[in-house]
Parts: sequence; C-alpha cells; structure tokens
Amino acid sequence: MITKTRRKKLIAESLKLLKKAHIVITPREAKNIETADFGLGQPETTGLQLIVYLNTDRCCAKELILLPKQTCPQHKHPPVEGEAGKEETFRCRWGKVYLYVEGKPIAKPKCKPPKDSINYYTARHQIVLNPGRQYTLAPDIWHWFQAGPKGAVVSEFSTKSRDQSDIFSDPRIRRKTVIDDSF
Amino acid sequence: MITKTRRKKLIAESLKLLKKAHIVITPREAKNIETADFGLGQPETTGLQLIVYLNTDRCCAKELILLPKQTCPQHKHPPVEGEAGKEETFRCRWGKVYLYVEGKPIAKPKCKPPKDSINYYTARHQIVLNPGRQYTLAPDIWHWFQAGPKGAVVSEFSTKSRDQSDIFSDPRIRRKTVIDDSF
Repeated sequence: MITKTRRKKLIAESLKLLKKAHIVITPREAKNIETADFGLGQPETTGLQLIVYLNTDRCCAKELILLPKQTCPQHKHPPVEGEAGKEETFRCRWGKVYLYVEGKPIAKPKCKPPKDSINYYTARHQIVLNPGRQYTLAPDIWHWFQAGPKGAVVSEFSTKSRDQSDIFSDPRIRRKTVIDDSF
Repeated sequence: MITKTRRKKLIAESLKLLKKAHIVITPREAKNIETADFGLGQPETTGLQLIVYLNTDRCCAKELILLPKQTCPQHKHPPVEGEAGKEETFRCRWGKVYLYVEGKPIAKPKCKPPKDSINYYTARHQIVLNPGRQYTLAPDIWHWFQAGPKGAVVSEFSTKSRDQSDIFSDPRIRRKTVIDDSF
C-alpha cells in the first residue's frame, strides 16, 4: 500500500508526461489514474501508472505511463477459462521504453532490474521502443519493461485484460487495482 | 479508383494533421497510409485515411485521419463466421468528430451527409467527440461519422477488422483496401 501523498505525486508526474506526449485525457480519467506498485511498496522503482480507456470481454486499450527508469516487473498472461492468454501490443508514443521478452539474450542490456529483485528477471531479449515503434507480444510469454531516463508513454492494445490472472516471477508481488480516489 | 496525384495529396494532408496531433508514425507507416474512397471516387468528401497498427485474429488498433468535413459513410459490422460483429471504440485525439449511430435522432444535427447520398444516411443519434472523448459502438449497429471544420485524428480500438464484411447502406459502395504505394 502506498500513501496518499506518494500516489498524488506519481499522478502529478504522470500528468506532466502525458502533457509532453500531447495526449489528452478527461478530468475524470486524470483523477482515476491507476498507480500500480505490485504490492512491493516502491512504486517509483517497481511500478507504473495506467489509464484504462476500455476493457470489454473482447478487447482492451490502455495508456501506460512510466516515470524515468520505472519498471513493470516480469510477468506473463496465461490462458484463462479455456481462452488463450492476453495478447498485447505496446506502441511507444513518447520517451523510450526497453522491453525484455523470452528469447535470445542480449549481451549488454541497457537496463538493470530493480536491485533487490534481480533473480526474478530472466527475460533478456531486448526490444527498444522509441516513439512510433511497437511490438506485439504473444500470450504466455515472460516479459518486463523499463522506461528510459525521461520516462515513457506507451499505448497498449490488447485482448481482454485480467490483471488478477497475471503470473509474476516475484512471489512477493500482489497485483491490486488502485484507482479509488478516496484512497 | 483515385489518381496517384489525389492519393498523394490526401496523404500529405493527413500527415499534417498527424503532426498537429503530435502522433509519431514510422516512415513505412507514412508511405503506406490507406486512402479509402469507398469506390465513390470522391475521397475528399466521402472517405478517410487509415493507419492499421495491428490487426490480428483477436484485436485491432488503427489511427483514423479525417480531413475537414470528410465523411466515413454509413455502415455496420455484422456477425462473421459465427462470431459477433466487430466491436469498436473511437477515441478522438485531435480535432473534432461527429458520430451518428442508431438511436434517438437529434433535431438539429451538426453535420449533413454528402449531397448525392443523403438517403443512405439514416442514423441520426449524434455523439460529439472532442479530444480525450471516446465512444464504444456495439456490433451490427448502423453508424457514420464526419470530421469538424479542422479535421480529426481518431484512435480506433476494436476486435478483428474485416473490412470486406462490412455492410454499407449505399449499394454503390465497394470497400477496397488501397495501401499499395506502387498504385
């Protein structure tokens, strides 16, 4: 759980990045930005901010906002109720994001996982996403990503999002949606 | 069929709008922008430009670019091969777009359908989309849309796109994908 003050700061910083990216959101969306800390209590390091534009039974679209060097921890989307896992595409809109997926490991990765969690980060095939670049991730593949030094704004296009079904490498992680502004 | 010169002009104007919207695309995406004239040969009136970011069996994301007053003609997305029709969300990123769907007709609509096609435009429930505003359209519902006086850039998030299966009110319409730059 993160304090109201920290959540407010994360949101304020995220709004600055959205402004730099020229992405317009409604006042209600701004108020309800989700701050994910994955239960680790260090959202400035392991965390990200999200705006869910749409999440129906069939498709989903989000804006992901990452502060400088903020990391979304390693996870994958398994099959759920007989349906293939979530298929997702990340399209960088502003800034830079380094995406790591299963596959041929890069010799000198640009990013380091958060200090106390290194052992949980095994995906080392590096994809660099600058603005206008995108990558589609097949379901059930381990992946994690980290923003560059200025942060990043990334559009995510996907099938239905079921955060509670995601599997994380780090057993300490608890994925909980925090968008309640009364929090 | 539209001439190479007209297609070039539509693309040049579309690129200007994308720039105003601060949406970054790759040189390849710019070259391959789809110009849809719906077989009517008047794309500046009845037509739109599209960038398909992604279209898999499960989901689809596009950027739609409409020049001032350009109209996407009335159509709907029926069920295909036992699957519900396309479900789509329009999110305005820049400019203004007027969306007309089945439902309670508005007394004084802001837009008029293209002159020679008025009888084919029956959906008169008006939704105004300014930047940051979005609307999710259920499958198999008649709809059409027209850009405001400065044009519009609209993100579309949807299930799989099957343009060839769309049904248009105007029987003269033929939906053909034109992205071949050798054309």
